[in-house]
Amino acid sequence: MALAWPEEKPAEACGLIGIYGAPQAASLIYQGLFSLQHRGQEGVGVVVGDGSRVRSTKGLGLVNDVITAEALRGLPGHLGIGHVRYSTTGSGRLQNVQPLVVECQDGIWAVAHNGNLINAKALRQMYQQAGAIFQTSTDSEVLVHLLADPMYRERPHRAARALRELQGAFAYLLMTKDCVMAARDPRGFKPLSIGRLGKSYVFASETCALAQMGATYLRDVRPGELVVADATGLNSSFFCEPLSPPAECIFELVYFARPDSIVFGESVHTVRRMLGRRLAEEQPAQADIVIPVPDSGNSAALGFSQGSGIPLDYGFIRNHYVGRTFIMPESAQRSSSVDLKLAVVTDVVKGKRIVVVDDSVIRGTTSRQRVAALRAAGAREIHLRIASPPTMHPCFFGIDFPTREELIAGTRSVEQVAEFIGVESLGYISLEGLLSPLKEPASFCAACFSGKYPLDVSQMQGKLALENYSPLLNLNP
Amino acid sequence: MALAWPEEKPAEACGLIGIYGAPQAASLIYQGLFSLQHRGQEGVGVVVGDGSRVRSTKGLGLVNDVITAEALRGLPGHLGIGHVRYSTTGSGRLQNVQPLVVECQDGIWAVAHNGNLINAKALRQMYQQAGAIFQTSTDSEVLVHLLADPMYRERPHRAARALRELQGAFAYLLMTKDCVMAARDPRGFKPLSIGRLGKSYVFASETCALAQMGATYLRDVRPGELVVADATGLNSSFFCEPLSPPAECIFELVYFARPDSIVFGESVHTVRRMLGRRLAEEQPAQADIVIPVPDSGNSAALGFSQGSGIPLDYGFIRNHYVGRTFIMPESAQRSSSVDLKLAVVTDVVKGKRIVVVDDSVIRGTTSRQRVAALRAAGAREIHLRIASPPTMHPCFFGIDFPTREELIAGTRSVEQVAEFIGVESLGYISLEGLLSPLKEPASFCAACFSGKYPLDVSQMQGKLALENYSPLLNLNP
Amino acid sequence: MALAWPEEKPAEACGLIGIYGAPQAASLIYQGLFSLQHRGQEGVGVVVGDGSRVRSTKGLGLVNDVITAEALRGLPGHLGIGHVRYSTTGSGRLQNVQPLVVECQDGIWAVAHNGNLINAKALRQMYQQAGAIFQTSTDSEVLVHLLADPMYRERPHRAARALRELQGAFAYLLMTKDCVMAARDPRGFKPLSIGRLGKSYVFASETCALAQMGATYLRDVRPGELVVADATGLNSSFFCEPLSPPAECIFELVYFARPDSIVFGESVHTVRRMLGRRLAEEQPAQADIVIPVPDSGNSAALGFSQGSGIPLDYGFIRNHYVGRTFIMPESAQRSSSVDLKLAVVTDVVKGKRIVVVDDSVIRGTTSRQRVAALRAAGAREIHLRIASPPTMHPCFFGIDFPTREELIAGTRSVEQVAEFIGVESLGYISLEGLLSPLKEPASFCAACFSGKYPLDVSQMQGKLALENYSPLLNLNP
Amino acid sequence: MALAWPEEKPAEACGLIGIYGAPQAASLIYQGLFSLQHRGQEGVGVVVGDGSRVRSTKGLGLVNDVITAEALRGLPGHLGIGHVRYSTTGSGRLQNVQPLVVECQDGIWAVAHNGNLINAKALRQMYQQAGAIFQTSTDSEVLVHLLADPMYRERPHRAARALRELQGAFAYLLMTKDCVMAARDPRGFKPLSIGRLGKSYVFASETCALAQMGATYLRDVRPGELVVADATGLNSSFFCEPLSPPAECIFELVYFARPDSIVFGESVHTVRRMLGRRLAEEQPAQADIVIPVPDSGNSAALGFSQGSGIPLDYGFIRNHYVGRTFIMPESAQRSSSVDLKLAVVTDVVKGKRIVVVDDSVIRGTTSRQRVAALRAAGAREIHLRIASPPTMHPCFFGIDFPTREELIAGTRSVEQVAEFIGVESLGYISLEGLLSPLKEPASFCAACFSGKYPLDVSQMQGKLALENYSPLLNLNP
Repeated sequence: MALAWPEEKPAEACGLIGIYGAPQAASLIYQGLFSLQHRGQEGVGVVVGDGSRVRSTKGLGLVNDVITAEALRGLPGHLGIGHVRYSTTGSGRLQNVQPLVVECQDGIWAVAHNGNLINAKALRQMYQQAGAIFQTSTDSEVLVHLLADPMYRERPHRAARALRELQGAFAYLLMTKDCVMAARDPRGFKPLSIGRLGKSYVFASETCALAQMGATYLRDVRPGELVVADATGLNSSFFCEPLSPPAECIFELVYFARPDSIVFGESVHTVRRMLGRRLAEEQPAQADIVIPVPDSGNSAALGFSQGSGIPLDYGFIRNHYVGRTFIMPESAQRSSSVDLKLAVVTDVVKGKRIVVVDDSVIRGTTSRQRVAALRAAGAREIHLRIASPPTMHPCFFGIDFPTREELIAGTRSVEQVAEFIGVESLGYISLEGLLSPLKEPASFCAACFSGKYPLDVSQMQGKLALENYSPLLNLNP
Repeated sequence: MALAWPEEKPAEACGLIGIYGAPQAASLIYQGLFSLQHRGQEGVGVVVGDGSRVRSTKGLGLVNDVITAEALRGLPGHLGIGHVRYSTTGSGRLQNVQPLVVECQDGIWAVAHNGNLINAKALRQMYQQAGAIFQTSTDSEVLVHLLADPMYRERPHRAARALRELQGAFAYLLMTKDCVMAARDPRGFKPLSIGRLGKSYVFASETCALAQMGATYLRDVRPGELVVADATGLNSSFFCEPLSPPAECIFELVYFARPDSIVFGESVHTVRRMLGRRLAEEQPAQADIVIPVPDSGNSAALGFSQGSGIPLDYGFIRNHYVGRTFIMPESAQRSSSVDLKLAVVTDVVKGKRIVVVDDSVIRGTTSRQRVAALRAAGAREIHLRIASPPTMHPCFFGIDFPTREELIAGTRSVEQVAEFIGVESLGYISLEGLLSPLKEPASFCAACFSGKYPLDVSQMQGKLALENYSPLLNLNP
Repeated sequence: MALAWPEEKPAEACGLIGIYGAPQAASLIYQGLFSLQHRGQEGVGVVVGDGSRVRSTKGLGLVNDVITAEALRGLPGHLGIGHVRYSTTGSGRLQNVQPLVVECQDGIWAVAHNGNLINAKALRQMYQQAGAIFQTSTDSEVLVHLLADPMYRERPHRAARALRELQGAFAYLLMTKDCVMAARDPRGFKPLSIGRLGKSYVFASETCALAQMGATYLRDVRPGELVVADATGLNSSFFCEPLSPPAECIFELVYFARPDSIVFGESVHTVRRMLGRRLAEEQPAQADIVIPVPDSGNSAALGFSQGSGIPLDYGFIRNHYVGRTFIMPESAQRSSSVDLKLAVVTDVVKGKRIVVVDDSVIRGTTSRQRVAALRAAGAREIHLRIASPPTMHPCFFGIDFPTREELIAGTRSVEQVAEFIGVESLGYISLEGLLSPLKEPASFCAACFSGKYPLDVSQMQGKLALENYSPLLNLNP
Repeated sequence: MALAWPEEKPAEACGLIGIYGAPQAASLIYQGLFSLQHRGQEGVGVVVGDGSRVRSTKGLGLVNDVITAEALRGLPGHLGIGHVRYSTTGSGRLQNVQPLVVECQDGIWAVAHNGNLINAKALRQMYQQAGAIFQTSTDSEVLVHLLADPMYRERPHRAARALRELQGAFAYLLMTKDCVMAARDPRGFKPLSIGRLGKSYVFASETCALAQMGATYLRDVRPGELVVADATGLNSSFFCEPLSPPAECIFELVYFARPDSIVFGESVHTVRRMLGRRLAEEQPAQADIVIPVPDSGNSAALGFSQGSGIPLDYGFIRNHYVGRTFIMPESAQRSSSVDLKLAVVTDVVKGKRIVVVDDSVIRGTTSRQRVAALRAAGAREIHLRIASPPTMHPCFFGIDFPTREELIAGTRSVEQVAEFIGVESLGYISLEGLLSPLKEPASFCAACFSGKYPLDVSQMQGKLALENYSPLLNLNP
């Protein structure tokens, strides 16, 4: 009877916060994670150090539920890292909540990861063959084995050597008892920004967290770069030269990132608004009003209205008290067109020809339900406009898309999708159009739309390859 | 260290849901309360009956936290009422959570109340004098003593007789083991709507709840009317003739009600949008963009943009994961301009002349903080426009406004308020303008703006008169 | 799958603690209730006052779970009362947890009750007829209506007048903002002792609580007496002359009270030990060892061993980690003779002729199960000896016995009971024997054994009369 | 203000349960752990398998709190192991709760351990040197690294090879997806018994758990033996020949084990009773009554009474509702002689010459407090008799004794101890006497009394050597 909210959007891997040099590192990490909550709602962890001791707290749930005032009091120290983890069915358990904290020969290492390693399974097998034991079902754990590997350990620049072995997408924050390190993979799939707050340095997946923490945005960690914050300040080196083609994830701009963030050098809201304008040119519609699907379609709908001259209005109202679950009544009286998150403003849509603007369509089932709700409220015509191209291909680098069969555009034409959703017309922006507002379009990976992957993925069996492989998945909590 | 969220807006008293004739009354009440959550976040209660037995559940917290699937399974029955209660400091305790459920001579009565009774203290003293005992510190409890009073009990129409004794503002839902009743005070201060869902009848404070439950809006309960839903259907009578002047609360349209509701016969979003247009005429501004304070300013900002021709943009982003408390770091590094709920989109506001549109200004402190955040992000000019007149007078009918001294407009001129908030200009809509979009402006109470109260309040000492009086306030939980 | 522990013994009504004049009244009440926990495990409440304000906390569960350090910090004051409530199926809900705290014309009254009023239903109906409302399903609530009744209120000695109206069994603690009162019914059914701790006065259902609190036992509250502790000291008066016959509950000595308490002037352990000696005389047995059923049979088994010369041994071991529930496996492999609370010491019982001594037999099912466990461990002969006569009659004064049909001795001969339980022989002490060690045997009620009730109960329909009557029973929590 | 209960006794390491071949393995493990709860109250874990998948649940707290009905439903399977862990200050965290469950090259291994490895630190350093990472601060984790070590893995009998590397005290239960293994160290420090339940095999630290599960005791796992239960039945081999001298822990018989268990072939209750008899011979006293310190002194007091002819009585009553913490009032009124767990029965002790029998004296502070309580209740003379010799030496094999300085007998004469505790006389049983009732006295380790350790412990720095070493200690939860 209790249902999870419909997951109409793909799940992001996670959000990272790191800080070095602030008296109350844990409080600042808490604030930073709070503003990255949209990147992961399943679990949260914080690890801090005071130069000699390392302390941590972890839990399943939202930042505000897990990190209590009492927990913060128990986490003194001036450096630390934190992590929010996304929610998927089945693989959620406390053991997998990051940062991982382990002890190896030279002491404690804490590790937080955003992304997906395509050679994690091979590395795991290699280390298990050599006698290693694993305690989570995440791909992130291989890095700690690389860090502990005597082969890398004896040489200088151990972290750099270990990172060099990883293939795939990663933003990593590492921590020892006296330093915090940040690294991005050599193609730059995942975002990671650097900020300054007084005398301390901050790392965050998105700049909106820097603003929340009161920090000033300095720059992004560069692809292949390893940035070390410690008592000597901020030190940069490259564990690997940036690889070509670069592969910054376009979906961060399409959907994941918060509109007030700057990601990969682009203002998220501005890009989305420009996509809306372009969409109005590419896919015009005869209509009385433009309405967004809140909140992901807000910026593009504004742009569409500006580009088309059709007035914007608010046809959907979002319920702010949506929690993790809702108890669905089994009553037959319940109309299937009633939505849990969004309510229709009848007075706005009744008798109108409407352009509905959304950022993307994944499975199409939620769009279909919402279109039905508009229709039930008296909308005369519904024209759906999408500010990204048809999502047709799986992601192997950290986005939890459904399989191609489940992606509605994966196996159907635009006309078939329009029919399924039940709209008078459906228009997607072109791939060209999607890239048009970007300063450096060539630096992005748009494989989910184009199918052109930045590296060879012929051997990948999807995101869950490692999890399917690991027998540790069934352990609770 | 743990702070409640700043309460920049006045607190509404509560939200009511009632239903008669549905197989799973509790599930529907749950859904209805869920969409009235904005009217009260402190506590929630549900009482249902199956014709012979009455069962209930109550708790402090949000609907989704208190009403579990297990609780719903323990609440069979086809009739029931539910209540969400607002949050104030100090007076929140389980004993006060409604519906009140009591036993008197003829069995169980359950009572849920929205509003404020101005003769509650006098009635309470009268009954205590006669030997009655009270178990809550709410004004709502006097009604159950009236219902149980043999003087009214012996005559027909007991509920009507009891309601006739009450003075002030009320929407009441009453329930016995086999019927649900709904009543509004004779001036109609508080909203209460009637809907139909299949063969069952539904009552709700706002029509957005009817939509969530899948019910069709029939009409409002009329001032002075007592509507009884039982096995014979829906029966109407008047316990009192409607009094003049009518006094429907204008603040429901200004702020409290959800935009997708119809309240007092008006579409909330449409009224607010029209207020924005009128505001643009009355208080024009030279600016580059119009931005709303989300979500309460959304509709009016849209209207202002349409009326002024100045483009709308989204300068604030709302954090959707805001919970009940946030642990405020004590660090001196934290800038006071960082907001918890709203984040500024720097790219939108930088270098711009901005019109900020909000629904009302109460204390002014939150507006001031947000203006500072815009300024910090580079806004060139900030012109604040308010879609209601200056809020200057206390409410004695259920709105938890601060005292006149705490109301920033209560003791200062518009120029002084503008200076306090820190804007280049400040403009409020006129009282005339506020009433201009309404079909029946004369039916509204706008005393918080005008000081003209619909009935004599010379003896009132504020909303907390009863609570200050009652020694039961200190009991926990 | 989760089962409550088998309730092989009747449930006691509750335990009371009161104190006047100690700086940290709440802490001392907590300690006192902690040592009265055996009298009630369902719920606990504490109310304290500092002379002007009254504060309380309540909850379902054990003292140690409900009364936290944080709760104690929120309960300043030098006077207060507390209550532990017993567990029954179905009627457990927070609303019924005592002390009741109400406001009437002259302020706060808090009330805690042990016992059963046989005219509660009549009083409730009378007051409801007059317009009163009730919020619990307990019989205890009628007293607060009597206290608030203007008829008694206008005269001096209101509490005395109100208490005089009650019929049945009661020990009551009452509290206003500046005094604590203690009263026992005129026949003295329920125990209530007075102690002194420094300059403060303490009331407790059993003297073991006085010892735990560090107080010295002064005397018992007398039947019909009202003792008031306030700033002037301890003041005694009689609201009613003691009635004849007196009716102190013999079952307190048989089972309820803790062995280290003095109850009704008798040392509980010593009485039980003497009953064991007498039992050995009345019901001798040829056996190798005497074993108690711990802990209720410990004292009597010691006496039986001393009286018979048969060596004592420990054939049962009690599991100290028994909680409220145990998840019973459904496996067919589980032998039905495995007990949850008591384990058999095989080495002690194997091949032996055993006398098992217990305090009473109620339903007989638990005894049967334990006899089977002894048999399975190799006991050769089992002779069950009971340190009270056959329990054959219901109690109308506060003991939650099963109905006569469920009482195994209610409808069967001793031989039939022996056969049901599965023992070689069964012997009960005689009623004469039961009374033999008592200093004033005539002051006791032994109606559950003799059927001779101290007052007319012909109209009583059992303990649940009121609860069956009250529709408030179904309310949760 | 909240204090832990005084830990007057040393803490045992833990309790183990394993089962192979039962349809509902988890339910049976739950029952078994429930009756081993006295061996560890800090945390509990259960791991089960159904032949292909392995599932687990863990938590801090008592068995009945952590293992819910819902948890059991999520743990299907026919084989499994479980563990209860003892409570110490500071090192309690979820990460350390066993069974450890890890993945290595050949799949899942789950490991549960009772005892202390004296070469754990050396092994940990060796593996960390080789690149291994550790996630707990327990000594038990080294075994999983040995199991995963390719050196042992390539050869047959991997578990045997790994176990052979361990030095110190251990009973281990190991589990893979299709078998359960049990092993004891070659000197047999720790108990581990084998039982049969229908067609399934059961392992348990004590036989009382076998009885609770309905299983029949077969025999003990032998020192150096590895017993494997799988689809082929029960298979025994020796990973090491039993070493001389054998070293079964005498303290299991003195204090740890439940009286209804058979441990190391001895009936615990019978041994303790015989120790009481011997003690009466060795250390006679002129007294009126013998009273036990419940429950640890119960059996010996019975024997003392039998041996001396002095009547037994119950001078202390144990409070059964003692939880994990008790909020200690700071009031000065509180007498220091009031005990939390035990209450004095004044009527028993007043004016008497008393022999108090206890199993052991560790710090002496609790004994002193209890003697004071007896004295306050009027005891005339108090003669303390201890059914074990003076505890003078630390244990390196799993018992959490205080240091020699904290052991009251470590640095004081018997006379000095008697004076500290405040008794008229104090008598310990002799080492000879302690061993006298045992069938094979030479097979026991009594180093805590004699100082003669069964193996070289010159390099040990106490139990916490590893925990002090590991930086993982500070992690919560």
